[in-house]
Order: sequence, then structure tokens, then C-alpha cells
Amino acid sequence: MAGAIIPRPELDGVPPVPHGGHAHAEPANILDFSSNVNPFGALPYIWEAMRSVPIERHPDPRAAPLRNALAERAEVHPACVLAGNGSSDLIYQLAVAFIRPGDKVLIVEPTFGEYRAAAALMGATIISFATRAEERFALDTAALIRTAQQVQPRLLFLCNPNNPTGVFLDQASVAALLAACPATLLVLDESYINFVADPWSACDLLAAGNLLILRSLTKDYALTGLRVGFALAAPEVIAALEKAQPPWSVNALAQAAAIAALRNESHLRTSLAALALAKAALVSNLILAGLAPLPSATSFFLLPVASAVETTCMLRERGIKVRDCTSFGLPAFVRIAAQRPEANAQLIAALALLRNKVLQK
Amino acid sequence: MAGAIIPRPELDGVPPVPHGGHAHAEPANILDFSSNVNPFGALPYIWEAMRSVPIERHPDPRAAPLRNALAERAEVHPACVLAGNGSSDLIYQLAVAFIRPGDKVLIVEPTFGEYRAAAALMGATIISFATRAEERFALDTAALIRTAQQVQPRLLFLCNPNNPTGVFLDQASVAALLAACPATLLVLDESYINFVADPWSACDLLAAGNLLILRSLTKDYALTGLRVGFALAAPEVIAALEKAQPPWSVNALAQAAAIAALRNESHLRTSLAALALAKAALVSNLILAGLAPLPSATSFFLLPVASAVETTCMLRERGIKVRDCTSFGLPAFVRIAAQRPEANAQLIAALALLRNKVLQK
Repeated sequence: MAGAIIPRPELDGVPPVPHGGHAHAEPANILDFSSNVNPFGALPYIWEAMRSVPIERHPDPRAAPLRNALAERAEVHPACVLAGNGSSDLIYQLAVAFIRPGDKVLIVEPTFGEYRAAAALMGATIISFATRAEERFALDTAALIRTAQQVQPRLLFLCNPNNPTGVFLDQASVAALLAACPATLLVLDESYINFVADPWSACDLLAAGNLLILRSLTKDYALTGLRVGFALAAPEVIAALEKAQPPWSVNALAQAAAIAALRNESHLRTSLAALALAKAALVSNLILAGLAPLPSATSFFLLPVASAVETTCMLRERGIKVRDCTSFGLPAFVRIAAQRPEANAQLIAALALLRNKVLQK
Repeated sequence: MAGAIIPRPELDGVPPVPHGGHAHAEPANILDFSSNVNPFGALPYIWEAMRSVPIERHPDPRAAPLRNALAERAEVHPACVLAGNGSSDLIYQLAVAFIRPGDKVLIVEPTFGEYRAAAALMGATIISFATRAEERFALDTAALIRTAQQVQPRLLFLCNPNNPTGVFLDQASVAALLAACPATLLVLDESYINFVADPWSACDLLAAGNLLILRSLTKDYALTGLRVGFALAAPEVIAALEKAQPPWSVNALAQAAAIAALRNESHLRTSLAALALAKAALVSNLILAGLAPLPSATSFFLLPVASAVETTCMLRERGIKVRDCTSFGLPAFVRIAAQRPEANAQLIAALALLRNKVLQK
């Protein structure tokens, strides 16, 4: 037996990150409210687009055709775009490209757990800027700017709209943050931007030079299984990120599907408008049932409960899956992503029945 | 304009790595001998297997069903396996998991360029153990063991059979290397192992504890566009590697295709046997035409030429693509991967015609 092979000591600081979504061991017919994906699904012609891909050939090493399509769509130069194997992959590559051991990384929390895991992996000193349940997780921009100016972090992770809270920050606040922290790279994760009814475009702020926008095609276009995300930033920032990305990172079918999806804006608009209506109805009915869902700019929202663990468990017994937010540091919340109206009706019925058990310890 | 956002200084040391294979800007009908992929293609039922995948759902975060299938096939515990988005992705994750700045990494060269790029990315001090053209790139195991014992590298990259040379090391040599360097993780890249006529199984050496085997399903099973590779190692090594891997790394369609491909051993055996025959005929005919291809254990081999750049260029003018080995440090070699007999006949005809130009400056 050989001596132990010692990994980098930083790995000890990487926290486990649980996630929502359907697990392969679960029954296929479970009603899943735990995954923030457009429930109206992908277009059937996505399959046609994929069927013509020669799978025995290498995809373009940097997904050039997709990159060009994304650049055209965002109205930026292709040197300002990098496609990735889902936005999670790009988060890890960002950490590798920019974080030296001991570098400070500021994370606005509660939020997506992979920022913390990726930063810890590269040995960052992580500072949390916590928003609070009592304030419905509203972000005090002035306080965040003060903290960022004190800390001078190398990276600042801000998910907008935020997962799991659905809180959405305005353009002026983000612009102020960028101006106040010129040596900080602000990673603005806009994975859920298309779920917002009337979003503003962060692309207008790219000229600042210290902004990196992360986007995903896996939630809005429902290409979750295919893994496609992308980053928008200044060419020097993208060039650095590219060095941390292995070649052929984006699967050839994912590239073809993404290009085809981008061509059909109208399906996206129609389905997301229907989802917004379904979410509004779901929220109204939960309020009528005596529950108090938090306001959100997205199709998902937080529901205060006595115990996230117990609520999740009770609903699962009824074939319904919601996201236990304990791993977000929120043991008294579940996250619910609105589904199609028929599914939502079942959730409303279940929660109306369980109301007292859900609200009381 | 904000201050410059400074990436990790290690990025400056990352070399660019050119690769073979079809580029998206090339004509579709080019005869491609530059990519080491099984030219008999993937089975059509791969598409059936993929068609039933719900693409709007997250894939399992660690590709559990594929991992189980791979473990069963390799006759190891699933904790000894990690599936990845192609073996290149796993190479980068290995670097992140194990390399501290200044750690020594030994690479047996000439070889696949991504080992060096990934090690440089993490700030390794890279030491090259060079095999030589005059010795047909044969590996002097005793000399390698002496170097490894002197250097005491954290990682040792050894591609077996090697890309681009096709040199294949025997089990006793690899066992001796593992025994001589107990504190070094030997990364044995077996991406091309199925192209070897009578391979030995490195799985028998996993008990040593300091061996990590990399395998790929993109070359032998011709799933190149889908990106699937995997690592086999001791559970502690795999656990460390897993921490450096973003979740949902393997695309859901790639998982389904890989599981389906693994079920059909016979197609693999039949097509690779046909390829071995085609390669033998190609090599014989090149020798008859007055050329001197190097012996190799794989379907690809090196061909000595006066100028790799010029030969590549002359063949491209005839619609034929070979791999210019200049980026491997071999400006007087091209790499040729045998294709189907019809394609090989065209290459033979072209090279017979160009023989004098190919061999003389």
C-alpha cells in the first residue's frame, strides 16, 4: 500500500451543497416544485436540431458557433462571451481564474451554494453579507457598498434575481456597486433574469470593466439536462476565464440545442408569461389558505413554515417535492417554484389540508 | 472605467494547446485523419437511448447511474469511480484537487498537451521526461523511475498507449513505477486502451493506492461530441477529485448514451477489429510507397516528414486533414489516425503522389 496521496488542503474547506430537482432514485411521477425550471418544457424542435449533429466529431473546443450566436443576441463582441457547461461550471472556472489563496470573496447570502464551494476550493477567505428574513431578504445596497469598500474583495457574488429569495436589485444599485469597487470583479448571476416580468439589461453596465454577467439557458429554455450557460464580460476577463476552461467543455448536442432555442424568442415569452400567471394564482391561493409566501420577482418564492424539514417530509408523503431551505441557512422556509396550473392546484390542496401542521411546531 | 481585474498570475504560464479534429469552419467533406476517433461511428440505437431522456430535468449531480454502470464494468466499488465531462475536464479537476503552487509535476512527453496546461494553471513546476524520436519514442522505464524518485513529483502524467506516439507500456513497468514512487499520484491516461489489440488491465494495480486511471468513451465508442470520460482510483483520491468537480458536470444525454454504449461490447469489438485491419493495410501501403510510419499499438501513428507544416498544408489542398505535430514539439512528424479502408486508399494515393515533396525540404 502506497503512502497517502494528499490533496490540496483547501479541499477540507469545501462545504457540501445540496440541490433541488428530481433525484434519479425518486419515482418519476413525483410533483416537483423544488427545481426552478420553466415547467412548460423545451420545444420539440430542439430534438430535430440535435438529431443532425455528428456525435462522433469533436465539438468546437470553445463552442464558437454558440458563442457567436450568444454575442449577436447580447449585442456584444464574441470576445466578450464564453459559453460553458452550465453556469455552475463557469462559477468554478471563475474561481480558478481569479482567486488566490487568502483572497477575499464577498457573497450576498442566502444564495446559491456553489459560489461558496468554488471560492473555498481555491482557498478564498469568504465574507458573507447576509440579508435577513425579518426584512424579507431585501438588500440594503448602501450597506453592501460600505462592506465591499471595507473588505475590497477580489470577487463579489450577487445573484440577481436571487435564488432562493427572488429578490431583484435595480440597475442604479448595481451601477453604484460597480463604481464604488473598481478593483472587485462583480459576478452578477442572472440565471433567472428571464423569469422577471420587466428586467433591465446588465449588458449596459459591461463597459465598467469589472462586471461579469452569468446567464443560463437551462432554466428559462428548460434545457436543464443539457447544461448550457454563458458569461459576458470585458475581453480581458473572458480571456482569463477561458484559460481555466478545459477544451470541448460544451457538449455538441447542447450547443445545437442552445442555438436552436435562441432562435425562438416567442416560445420563451409565451411560456414565461403563462408561468407568471400560474405563479400569481398559486401565491393568491396560498394566501387564501392562510399561508404567507414572500414576494418574489421570479416564478419561485420562499414560504415561511415552522420546520422546513418536517414540511418537506409531509409533502413528500403526498408525492410532492419542495426545496427544504435548511442548507441555505433557512430552516424555517421552503422554496416553491410554480409549475403548471394543474400541478399548482394539487400543491394548494395539500398545503390547505396541512396548514396547521406546516405553521406550528 | 474600472481598475484592471487581475487574474491569478499562474494563468500567464498556461500554454495554448492546439488539437486535431474537425473544425467548425472546415468543409464537411474533408477527409479527417487528424482525430483519433473510431471511424465506424456510434451505434444508431444511441439516439434511441437519448430520445427518452427528459432534458428539462437536472441530470444526477454526480452521474450516479452512469457511475454505477462504469463501476460494474470495471468491477470496482462506485466510490472508486468518477464520471466526467470528457477526460479533459477530469484532467483540470485533478490539477485543482491536487496541485499546490510550486508542486512538481512530471510529464512523459511528447504527449497530450492538456496535462501541461492544467498543471501550469495550478502553478505547478513542470518537469518533462522526454522520449526521443531516434528511439522511436520508446520509454526507458528504469530512467523514468530514477527521475521520478529524484523529483518526487506530486503528480506524474503518463498516457498509455501514448498520444501521439502510440507507444504502449507493459504492466510490469507501470507496477514498478507505482512501487517506486508511493507519494506520487500516477495519472495513467488510458483514453486509447481499447484501440490496443491485447491490452492488460490497469485495474489490477488500483490497490496500490497511488494510481488514477483516466478513461474516455469518446474515442472508442465514437461519442466524441457528447463528452464522457471517467476516473478510477482509490476512494480517497476520488473523493478529493469530486470536490473539484462542479455539480451536474455530465450532460444527461451523454449519461444515457454512455450507459447504452457500455451495454454493447460486441459493436466495439467488431468495429475496433476492423479498424486494426484497416490500420495494418494503411501502414503496409505507406511503407510500399516509400514512407516510414512508426510502429504503434493504436490506430494512430506518427509519420516522419521533412516538414509537418508543409505536409499538412499540401494534404489539406487535396481535401485531407492530418495532425501537424509541431505543437507536440515534433515539427518533422504528422499524426495519422487510420480511417475506413475507402478513406485510407485516398490518403495512400495522395501520399504516394506527394512522396518526394513530403520527404524532402
